[in-house]
Amino acid sequence: MKRLRVRSKSGEYDVIVGEGAWHSLRRLEGHSSRFVLTEPGLWKRWGGKFSRDAGWGRVRPVFIPAGERSKSLAMAGRVACELLERGADRRSLLVAFGGGVVGDLGGFVASTYMRGIALAQAPTTVLAQVDSAIGGKTAVNVRAMKNLIGTFYPPCQVVSEPAVLGSLSTRAFQSGLYEVIKHAILSGPDLFGFLESNLAALGPKQASRLEAVVGRAAQVKVDVVTRDEREAGLRRVLNLGHTYGHALEEVTAYRRFQHGEAVGWGLLLVTRLAELVGLLESAAGRRIRDLVRQAGHLPPIRDLRWERILNLLPRDKKAVGGNIHWVLPERIGKVQITPDVPAGAVAAAFREVQRGAWHE
Amino acid sequence: MKRLRVRSKSGEYDVIVGEGAWHSLRRLEGHSSRFVLTEPGLWKRWGGKFSRDAGWGRVRPVFIPAGERSKSLAMAGRVACELLERGADRRSLLVAFGGGVVGDLGGFVASTYMRGIALAQAPTTVLAQVDSAIGGKTAVNVRAMKNLIGTFYPPCQVVSEPAVLGSLSTRAFQSGLYEVIKHAILSGPDLFGFLESNLAALGPKQASRLEAVVGRAAQVKVDVVTRDEREAGLRRVLNLGHTYGHALEEVTAYRRFQHGEAVGWGLLLVTRLAELVGLLESAAGRRIRDLVRQAGHLPPIRDLRWERILNLLPRDKKAVGGNIHWVLPERIGKVQITPDVPAGAVAAAFREVQRGAWHE
Repeated sequence: MKRLRVRSKSGEYDVIVGEGAWHSLRRLEGHSSRFVLTEPGLWKRWGGKFSRDAGWGRVRPVFIPAGERSKSLAMAGRVACELLERGADRRSLLVAFGGGVVGDLGGFVASTYMRGIALAQAPTTVLAQVDSAIGGKTAVNVRAMKNLIGTFYPPCQVVSEPAVLGSLSTRAFQSGLYEVIKHAILSGPDLFGFLESNLAALGPKQASRLEAVVGRAAQVKVDVVTRDEREAGLRRVLNLGHTYGHALEEVTAYRRFQHGEAVGWGLLLVTRLAELVGLLESAAGRRIRDLVRQAGHLPPIRDLRWERILNLLPRDKKAVGGNIHWVLPERIGKVQITPDVPAGAVAAAFREVQRGAWHE
Repeated sequence: MKRLRVRSKSGEYDVIVGEGAWHSLRRLEGHSSRFVLTEPGLWKRWGGKFSRDAGWGRVRPVFIPAGERSKSLAMAGRVACELLERGADRRSLLVAFGGGVVGDLGGFVASTYMRGIALAQAPTTVLAQVDSAIGGKTAVNVRAMKNLIGTFYPPCQVVSEPAVLGSLSTRAFQSGLYEVIKHAILSGPDLFGFLESNLAALGPKQASRLEAVVGRAAQVKVDVVTRDEREAGLRRVLNLGHTYGHALEEVTAYRRFQHGEAVGWGLLLVTRLAELVGLLESAAGRRIRDLVRQAGHLPPIRDLRWERILNLLPRDKKAVGGNIHWVLPERIGKVQITPDVPAGAVAAAFREVQRGAWHE
């Protein structure tokens, strides 16, 4: 079991990674009542263990339908109404038990229900365990843009049980590995080398090996958000691979890629971009490309039109005054944030990766 | 011109009350773009002066329909979409130019749009100038409950121009006076006595006399929120008159009373309640009652059924674990917060005030 500590301006909290992590919820005391937000399928499989581990007896969760469409203002309103009907007050605790959608929506509801109640994150996907459940970002989608509305709202605890990853589909599991790779690029040769040796053999059911990988990848996120909660500067490095990635998701109406898969493409794309602008040596570029390839098979991008993707790039939230802040790998363990990237290189990187001229 | 300073954990800001207050917006610098949220009728009357005073040239506001129904999650989403379409990014400024609805909704949107952009409040009603625009509370209504969803989000500036009150209807103007009286009860004999001498003669067009009243009443709010931003304790005193008041609004489906009018009844009711439980001397009770009566004429409550109001009382957000925290006047300048009020007294106070047995 690994206990990581996030220290941020708006509060401190533990991120607990390891077998039996849900037991740590027992330490949360002083709440007038406790609620779990989750999806029906997930709860059916893991609700029993969760309730036993947390020591909460019979839990009747607040359910939302699985899938990105639940991450809406309307759903936030519906969840708030159910919480109210069931007597949640300002001193209640809400546990978001699920992947990115449950975590983002649950965090948003907790941060705004009666202007804020206590929140615990119990992430159940690789992506949520190493990334989205840590750091206090919450969000819902609005017609015009994903994550357009949200808050910064730190949880009081994050509890990541690796066993729960065992019931992920291969695709969902692999999708999360791209975020792990992103963290390894940010972190350095140590974690990166560890992944090079272990990623290919890593499956959703290998709880103990997963515990090590998730723990180390989560540490990267903990370190970054501890130093920069509000994304004023450092936290932006976490956006590595996301500028292209968001555009890929949007141009395909969020139907083709799992989020992590779009990030996987995004990592390949910024790696090539960093090479093209002379920032990254080709040996390091090759290592990144090979590791991304090891994680699994990405849905195709061959049919996507560059012009449409280009139009979607500056809509990224991190764009201030219209400029894109590119996060480019400089070497394994170091990235550079820069708005000064020639448009030609941005397009060339996409076309090369798309044609497979570079990476196949 | 009066400059009050709010000092809270999440930031410091000025509340500027007086003729020409909108000029102070010129001091807000460093924003990538500026947006105004307002209602069409209000903007038609005051938009020209606002734009000139703020020095912003031609402003094209984001409009919402007048009225409480605009304070919804759906409207928050619509405003966010319009901001996005018009290029608002994380460094944009949003000015909420209006009464309580615009201020609460605008504050909520600013606090959640891209996880938070800068907010200035330009309140245009008595109620908003002395109360709701100060202190950083934002909210929207959800089907089940008014203000169920919201945030704590301090503005970077509050600018209150008394001239704008000149176009309020008599009813809207008087409605705000009940919140002024609430602040005087909290504040003490000085402001209370000042109101006893001046309230009857106070009209919406008397800008200079209004400036004095609004400035002093706003000071009360500034002092309270500076000491207790998150309502952990002290801020609850601001709820004086609101427990009964909210129930009155809800039982009449928010159609009969303006918010301030419900608070006016609420003040009469808790004053009688405080007398009944032996907390408040009848001489002080009489002074409060007389001042409330001076402010104007309240819509009737004679037809309302106590049983229905009783059922609505514990739904107040401040109720923790089901107990109502009553805010009761102890004397002019002091209130007591207590959950221990006999149910019989709560009902008796309502019935006496309703029948007019006490106050007529």
